[in-house]
Amino acid sequence: MRDLSALFDPAAVAIIGASDDPAKWGHAVARQALRAGRRRPVHLINRRGGTVLGRPTARKLAEVGAPVDLVVVAVPEQYFEEAVDDALAQGARAIVGITAGFGETGADGRARQRAIADRVRAAGAALVGPNCLGLVDNTTEVYLASDAFTPGRVAFLSQSGNLALELGLRLTARGLGMSRFVSYGNQADVTLVDLLASCAGHDGTQAIAVYAEDFADGRAFAEAAAATSKPIVLLSAGRGAASARGAASHTGAMTSPADVVAAACRDAGIHQAATVRDLTVLLEALSGVHRATGRRTAVLTDGGGHGSIAADVAEAAGLTVPELSAPLQASLRGRLWGPSAVGNPVDLAGMGEQDPASYPAVVETLIAAPEVDAVLMTGYFGGYSVGGGALGRLELSAAEQLAVAAACGQTPVVVQSMYPESPSCRVLAAAGVPVFGAIEDAARALAAVTPAARTPSVAPLPPAAEPIADGGYFAVRGLLERAGVAFPEAREVWDEDGVRRAAGALAGPYALKAVGLLHKSDAGGVALRVSDAEELAVAFREMRARLGDMPYSVERMAVLDDGVELIAGVRRDPRFGPVLMVGLGGVYAEVLRDVAFALAPVDARRARELLEGLRTAALLHGVRDKSPVDLDAAARTVAALAGVAAAHPEIAEIEINPLLASPDGALALDARVIL
Amino acid sequence: MRDLSALFDPAAVAIIGASDDPAKWGHAVARQALRAGRRRPVHLINRRGGTVLGRPTARKLAEVGAPVDLVVVAVPEQYFEEAVDDALAQGARAIVGITAGFGETGADGRARQRAIADRVRAAGAALVGPNCLGLVDNTTEVYLASDAFTPGRVAFLSQSGNLALELGLRLTARGLGMSRFVSYGNQADVTLVDLLASCAGHDGTQAIAVYAEDFADGRAFAEAAAATSKPIVLLSAGRGAASARGAASHTGAMTSPADVVAAACRDAGIHQAATVRDLTVLLEALSGVHRATGRRTAVLTDGGGHGSIAADVAEAAGLTVPELSAPLQASLRGRLWGPSAVGNPVDLAGMGEQDPASYPAVVETLIAAPEVDAVLMTGYFGGYSVGGGALGRLELSAAEQLAVAAACGQTPVVVQSMYPESPSCRVLAAAGVPVFGAIEDAARALAAVTPAARTPSVAPLPPAAEPIADGGYFAVRGLLERAGVAFPEAREVWDEDGVRRAAGALAGPYALKAVGLLHKSDAGGVALRVSDAEELAVAFREMRARLGDMPYSVERMAVLDDGVELIAGVRRDPRFGPVLMVGLGGVYAEVLRDVAFALAPVDARRARELLEGLRTAALLHGVRDKSPVDLDAAARTVAALAGVAAAHPEIAEIEINPLLASPDGALALDARVIL
Repeated sequence: MRDLSALFDPAAVAIIGASDDPAKWGHAVARQALRAGRRRPVHLINRRGGTVLGRPTARKLAEVGAPVDLVVVAVPEQYFEEAVDDALAQGARAIVGITAGFGETGADGRARQRAIADRVRAAGAALVGPNCLGLVDNTTEVYLASDAFTPGRVAFLSQSGNLALELGLRLTARGLGMSRFVSYGNQADVTLVDLLASCAGHDGTQAIAVYAEDFADGRAFAEAAAATSKPIVLLSAGRGAASARGAASHTGAMTSPADVVAAACRDAGIHQAATVRDLTVLLEALSGVHRATGRRTAVLTDGGGHGSIAADVAEAAGLTVPELSAPLQASLRGRLWGPSAVGNPVDLAGMGEQDPASYPAVVETLIAAPEVDAVLMTGYFGGYSVGGGALGRLELSAAEQLAVAAACGQTPVVVQSMYPESPSCRVLAAAGVPVFGAIEDAARALAAVTPAARTPSVAPLPPAAEPIADGGYFAVRGLLERAGVAFPEAREVWDEDGVRRAAGALAGPYALKAVGLLHKSDAGGVALRVSDAEELAVAFREMRARLGDMPYSVERMAVLDDGVELIAGVRRDPRFGPVLMVGLGGVYAEVLRDVAFALAPVDARRARELLEGLRTAALLHGVRDKSPVDLDAAARTVAALAGVAAAHPEIAEIEINPLLASPDGALALDARVIL
Repeated sequence: MRDLSALFDPAAVAIIGASDDPAKWGHAVARQALRAGRRRPVHLINRRGGTVLGRPTARKLAEVGAPVDLVVVAVPEQYFEEAVDDALAQGARAIVGITAGFGETGADGRARQRAIADRVRAAGAALVGPNCLGLVDNTTEVYLASDAFTPGRVAFLSQSGNLALELGLRLTARGLGMSRFVSYGNQADVTLVDLLASCAGHDGTQAIAVYAEDFADGRAFAEAAAATSKPIVLLSAGRGAASARGAASHTGAMTSPADVVAAACRDAGIHQAATVRDLTVLLEALSGVHRATGRRTAVLTDGGGHGSIAADVAEAAGLTVPELSAPLQASLRGRLWGPSAVGNPVDLAGMGEQDPASYPAVVETLIAAPEVDAVLMTGYFGGYSVGGGALGRLELSAAEQLAVAAACGQTPVVVQSMYPESPSCRVLAAAGVPVFGAIEDAARALAAVTPAARTPSVAPLPPAAEPIADGGYFAVRGLLERAGVAFPEAREVWDEDGVRRAAGALAGPYALKAVGLLHKSDAGGVALRVSDAEELAVAFREMRARLGDMPYSVERMAVLDDGVELIAGVRRDPRFGPVLMVGLGGVYAEVLRDVAFALAPVDARRARELLEGLRTAALLHGVRDKSPVDLDAAARTVAALAGVAAAHPEIAEIEINPLLASPDGALALDARVIL
């Protein structure tokens, strides 16, 4: 891990480009930086000299005459390199490059920023940016951005300043705040991965939020995320073409396909948010101490409408709302009155107004029940304390009792209230019970603290194997066969003699393929179910007359009837490296796009999980009178393919299609590679 | 339509059960009712006499000695009937039954409320409830609920009081309010449909919101909704089992399956909301005057992160964010500076801070462009006016210019701002430009004002045909054949002689079916591709030995190779009547559940829309080397099935499965009916 201590806790700071002009970034940053002027020296540098914010400036960093380990550079683009070189010459160990006009403008800008970053690294220093908006560490009073952020325990690593402002506002409104904010800009030197690793080891940070347009080394990002136990929530751009267009113009970003990002997040245990609001809900949930051990949720309300809507919303969020057991119902019934419903939703049906203490009584019973993993309270609670009076006082004391119960129990309790700012709800929130005004937020928060489907892990890339140079059909068959993939027996043939020899060596019926073509099916280069040697020779003559001299393959025809055609492929993503895709094959591959993705390599267990997660997985388990296919064999084949792709960085794309999964095993009926 | 004038604008009101006890409903309602004491007499009735809220009461309605046309009954259950009878005796034309303990408690309660409703109707009066929470008409100062609601132009018809309170709070926060609120309870007499029709004709109501647990006559509800031009937004309970359980205990509701409700809403042009928050967003959008003519959305921001996220969120909401044309880009480019992006998202890239007037300039250009159907502005706008100063004043004036542009143009403009309560955003909101704090709300609002996929229409049920009594295979074949459904030629056979005669009359190969069995496939009662008369006889002997004496069918075997197996069925829903389902058939019907629903009957055009809306519709259009199927023939068959089901109320369920759609037409390969 890189040493970024000079970035997050420098002994002295200088701002090159400090200015009195409020329209300039060097003004806002200088003003913020001076807030911590007692903690460490802050030197302002302005090439025209004079004062800035009423303080004397130096014209050059060299004139400061004192050691400076962190330098912020906020000068016009044409002066940026000189300022960086000055900083290095004066012994700076960290530089924050605000200046824009580099990598985001195109190839030339990328080359220039790369050269600057090389000099920074050679000097043993670290550069954040360029084209960034600064950096804040509230735990060490480093204020080097245009705005202040409420202190808290969320670190936000962002490629957008305005999204950070919005997140800051939203976190503050929820009683949360930021430990650090880093605008990491073009990542010429210090990358998102470096910053993630630093925050993972930062005591003042409890959860890490990321807004990314360009993941740079996405694989390393996923690996770093999987390695930390802190919750990580990602908001990313580029799901659609318009979003990617926006990111490209914004930071020159190469966004990653949504499927690939989602696969990396699943593998690495990263939560994905769709909006800043969603990000805030997830951060609030994950900042709490409670984690559910399952998804079985008890809904509690005092009003049937809220209970029914909450149940539907909870299920839509991935929770379950099972009917409570008879003993638990009886136990609740004993505490409530006739009209109350105890099946789940538990509806006090007016009892909450008669006796607000029935809320905590029910919650205590629910969180003590092993069959309940989480409690979702919804509706009116809080309203009586707004009205005041005797009922309000009773509700307040119920809220206190509820807060104690929730804090002492192991089961998460999340509340939706029509009156989220009421005195009663403030009591709950102060005790760490998340209170939301919207039921969709409450359900989302609860779902976020239920167990992930799998333990986060990103398998490391294996050492590179001897590269292959031949991308031909028989070469790729050989490569995969050596890795354990089964193919039908085949012979490479170039002429009719070869065809007859192959027919003699293999049992019929046969398949004949023009394997010299990349899209042989579309070109009419495949003949299936050829019954004997004679027909095979006829088919070969016809095909060669049409398609020309090239390698052909004569193969034993596989029995397709009992099997399910799958497709498995690995594509090397420029950011995330080899990414495995498995799915239903044949004509349904195009129509349904029922596919699953994961970072390669994968082991057979993970490959099986992917297959079993397909929408059409029921086909693999055998529908109607069909036998189940040998899922383990299919999974082993998929894992072997992924392993080969991961070990061969020269492979841009490799695919087995179709992969015939049958009760007897798994057979690769065709394969192709693009180097 | 029922005359509900006494309900919504009575000349005089009486409250039976008015009370000084704040825990009683009769207290809250009386307090509210008296707010309009100057508009009309409000008589308080309490069986113990004395004063309530400082006003004298009568012991009985008869003692009032003045005409009363609307009576609220809020007495204990055992006195309810007597109070209703008193009201009718005194000439009341409308009764609001607050009292609970009837239909929601079970069959006995349902019988009692039915008897009461019969007496009310016989007297020419109307009863809302029982088990309701009252009624408000802010346009006529009728305040007969426990709470006051901010006046506005949304009518809310609800089976929940607390959800109405939440909606009221949310509408008020958005500057909206309610024209009417009716808690319609158990619908013993006045139903949701009556109230919908009344609000459709109510001048003070612009949009209608509904919370429903039980639709009662769902078909009539859909028809009434399709008949009104006012926007209707529905929040309904019962999507999942837990929600349905909650509704059953709450109002004794029989909820309807989510698929059926969604189909009715699509047919009738009703918007569906998932939560009260969602309901509020939709109501705000639909309360505006602007409607988009398409889904092509221009995203405008001053900060790349917000633009990219907004583009993704817009697409997820069903909008499109296409790249702008070169001329439009050039026109925008002329107004902006170098770093600005004009592809869409349009990113001012700092120009908004340099010159806030660039916001309205861009919006004016965008809404004048025929290629832009809607504008979604997102991000920082508003923030400068919070800060004040010169920049704040410039932003405020930009907001005013923007408000004028948006109001004068035809293109909807919706804004997401980090500072939705800022002076600039208040200027926009006051001019009718919806401003949201969350981008998902802004996108949802914009999507709500784009054109619906189809013109709302619910085909009326045809007059009932002569009922059928025979649910056997040949009877249902005959019924469907007469409606125009094609079947393979078939002969009913009972013995081997019959089998041989059938083989002589029909060309082979054959299918043999034990049509006396409901689940003949599972029982081994189907033999396919039987080649000749001899084999047919063998198959028949074997089948009869195993399954016994019953009608069998010998049929010409259809050629399955070129076709796609579909499934089409109609089930009679207790609330919504005949509901058509079409989908992909065969083994994929179970695995994929790729099905579409609509209220039956449908015409062939609508049936075709349903087929083309399937996820796997590409199969029908011909994938790879397959020819497209005759979609019109398939659609005609589906429409014929739907028509038969709609004309035969005695049919609980009817199904064609499989329905073979092929390039040559559509053939019903099997059919069954449940009477």
